[in-house]
Amino acid sequence: MQTEQTPSVALLLTGNELMTGDIVDSNSAMMASDLLDIGLTVNYKATIADDMTVLVSELQRLSALHDVLIVNGGLGPTRDDLTAEALALACGTSIEEHPEALAHLTELFETKGFTLNAANLKQAALPKGALVVANPVGSAVGFKIELNDCLVICTPGVPSELKVMLKQEISPLLRRLTHASNDPLRERLRVFGMGESGLQQSIYDHFPDWPEAIELGFRASLPLLELKLQSKGENHRPLLATWRAKVIKHLGAHFVTDTGQSLAAIVIDQLRERNQTMTCAESCTGGLIASQITAVSGASGVFEAGFVTYSNAIKTKLLQVPEKDLQQHGAVSDLVVRQMLKGALQQSSADIGVAVSGIAGPDGGSDDKPVGLVWIAWGRKDAVQSKAFYLPVSRVRFQQIVAAMALDLVRRELMGLNDAPLYFEERGFKVSAV
Amino acid sequence: MQTEQTPSVALLLTGNELMTGDIVDSNSAMMASDLLDIGLTVNYKATIADDMTVLVSELQRLSALHDVLIVNGGLGPTRDDLTAEALALACGTSIEEHPEALAHLTELFETKGFTLNAANLKQAALPKGALVVANPVGSAVGFKIELNDCLVICTPGVPSELKVMLKQEISPLLRRLTHASNDPLRERLRVFGMGESGLQQSIYDHFPDWPEAIELGFRASLPLLELKLQSKGENHRPLLATWRAKVIKHLGAHFVTDTGQSLAAIVIDQLRERNQTMTCAESCTGGLIASQITAVSGASGVFEAGFVTYSNAIKTKLLQVPEKDLQQHGAVSDLVVRQMLKGALQQSSADIGVAVSGIAGPDGGSDDKPVGLVWIAWGRKDAVQSKAFYLPVSRVRFQQIVAAMALDLVRRELMGLNDAPLYFEERGFKVSAV
Repeated sequence: MQTEQTPSVALLLTGNELMTGDIVDSNSAMMASDLLDIGLTVNYKATIADDMTVLVSELQRLSALHDVLIVNGGLGPTRDDLTAEALALACGTSIEEHPEALAHLTELFETKGFTLNAANLKQAALPKGALVVANPVGSAVGFKIELNDCLVICTPGVPSELKVMLKQEISPLLRRLTHASNDPLRERLRVFGMGESGLQQSIYDHFPDWPEAIELGFRASLPLLELKLQSKGENHRPLLATWRAKVIKHLGAHFVTDTGQSLAAIVIDQLRERNQTMTCAESCTGGLIASQITAVSGASGVFEAGFVTYSNAIKTKLLQVPEKDLQQHGAVSDLVVRQMLKGALQQSSADIGVAVSGIAGPDGGSDDKPVGLVWIAWGRKDAVQSKAFYLPVSRVRFQQIVAAMALDLVRRELMGLNDAPLYFEERGFKVSAV
Repeated sequence: MQTEQTPSVALLLTGNELMTGDIVDSNSAMMASDLLDIGLTVNYKATIADDMTVLVSELQRLSALHDVLIVNGGLGPTRDDLTAEALALACGTSIEEHPEALAHLTELFETKGFTLNAANLKQAALPKGALVVANPVGSAVGFKIELNDCLVICTPGVPSELKVMLKQEISPLLRRLTHASNDPLRERLRVFGMGESGLQQSIYDHFPDWPEAIELGFRASLPLLELKLQSKGENHRPLLATWRAKVIKHLGAHFVTDTGQSLAAIVIDQLRERNQTMTCAESCTGGLIASQITAVSGASGVFEAGFVTYSNAIKTKLLQVPEKDLQQHGAVSDLVVRQMLKGALQQSSADIGVAVSGIAGPDGGSDDKPVGLVWIAWGRKDAVQSKAFYLPVSRVRFQQIVAAMALDLVRRELMGLNDAPLYFEERGFKVSAV
């Protein structure tokens, strides 16, 4: 492998299921992203079925054209797993039982109390001259071998196994072979409440003097948006730090985190720091807010109760919303959503809470209360705020955005961010009382 | 293009964002799946960056090797959209303004009230000799052209545009070129409560006489599993119907639907048919069951209330679970989960309900109540059943499977399927009281 300049990297994905549309390949994005973290770009990606002829020919072709070839898939115990044999053929050698691979399998199966059968033993047979690339979490042993002056690394198709191997084995290996100083400096800032084009425009407008040395990237990570600031070379570290701070200041309350956490996880952290608890009363989101909170490990310390009050009757029974107000103002109204929040705070004794009532559609809208309208109330017993938002999107999208808004409003309240919550204004969504 | 035998099809995906891991490519799975519906298999897939040299060379290479080449991406108005120019170069011609493409753009922009600018006009420039493939939903005009005796079809990278074009334009086009009689017959059966390998084994064991003319496929569609029965040619229609019936009978209560609906949607349909309502009391799933129900349009007719009772105190307050039982038996117990269900049925006046209490982990387990243990109670006021399950998987996976089990148990109850719910037994998960 030539290491004088940035090596050319190709991926070869193999598997019949990749050719039928039965699964969406997420492995190659995972590999590309990890490679990028060590300054390597994927130059070419080929995807083929489990076919020995095609596999051998692609191994030959791609290894001749590139410096690194990562093969993904075909390391399993079944007959259609062909990678080891194909690489042996391409290298003009044969497969043989590899002592280290066998030891790995034996140990793994002993731990689980299973017996190795002939199919499993197949996974210990690697091309002569191959070196094991450890798989700490599964039976498919990875391996590496030189072919046509190219480093070929074979990895398993199971995403959870690939993920661990990339972090623990393959990235360090490639990092040693390339130059660590090539490592890009990168900051990932997560933002809520702005669309991709709106965020982009806002940055370009606000910073006409944006430095060329810092590359901007955007990635939708619904419901959040990820803003990537990237630069190459240690000497740019101070510049990156300066611009990171500038951007965060410009984003204001829209800036959520630089840790990659979810909105719910951040709210939980904030609650835990303050030794407080929260609750939620949900109509149109139907449990989505509660389920996002409880998806986070450790939620039980800050979350005791959620109320999914879908019908009017249960809003009265569970949250003491007066019947007459429901009749007079309707369930989707400022008054009712405030009463829902009060009822939930009282029932649960939580310190802070959020209540939502809206029209998710596709049915149930009217002229003055269209599909996409939602009232949200948030705050504490003695300090409730509320606001109407209008989001004319599909039912599922509406529920996702409203749940995220609800969590974000609690986050802002906890952190004392008192900017008016102007969500997705640049998309023309109305953000005031209707 | 040769149409005597099944044509060889290749995909060529282009876009820098596909090489950096910033997006996961779902377009190629969509294309593969639509092609399969007309009897065509994707033989090869290449993914490359927006690079003119690589693009031209791959167009040459792949068109020489295959009968059909579908190019995806690079049709936009910006400078890195290179497909039309690359194809012109590969064909040894140039690009020129195409009257039909121009008419499409003019009309589209008039409808929207926008003015065409120079960047937009670029989208009307196609290789000489190309024919337009209509894009009914976007500005990127598709086109087709012959190169090296291969039919090259260029499509836009925006998934929603590609989707419509595949259905309305490309599938019919390819179907005419191949043989309509090649169309496969296909049945998709959705199954819950068995893993992929367990289902596979069970089918092979039970049907040693499985007919060769019917191909079996499996696809994880979490939390359901999809079983695909496929055959080619009209004369196999009766055979397929027979085996479809045999398989459904063999699957018993594990068979969920042949319509592609979610578990929640099926439960809602069943409730609506019977004019009944349901409720749920959730501890470890924290609102996930309610949110899956309310994600379905029309849920309000059958679902009024959900109770997210995460703490012991709220189980007592909201659902009248006696404090002494919580202390004596613990929240994760047969008695408590039954009381949760009773409380929820009473509070909501629902006809049928389900309650879950378990240890999602990673913390909170003990020797006799390990992480992964869950008690589920389901049924009606006068007919409550309950059962413990043990699912030693990650927190999020645990919550997903438990929510699906809860919905499936309500489905079974509503449909009078009285088989013992043996979920994922083949994976060695314990399925009885602990």
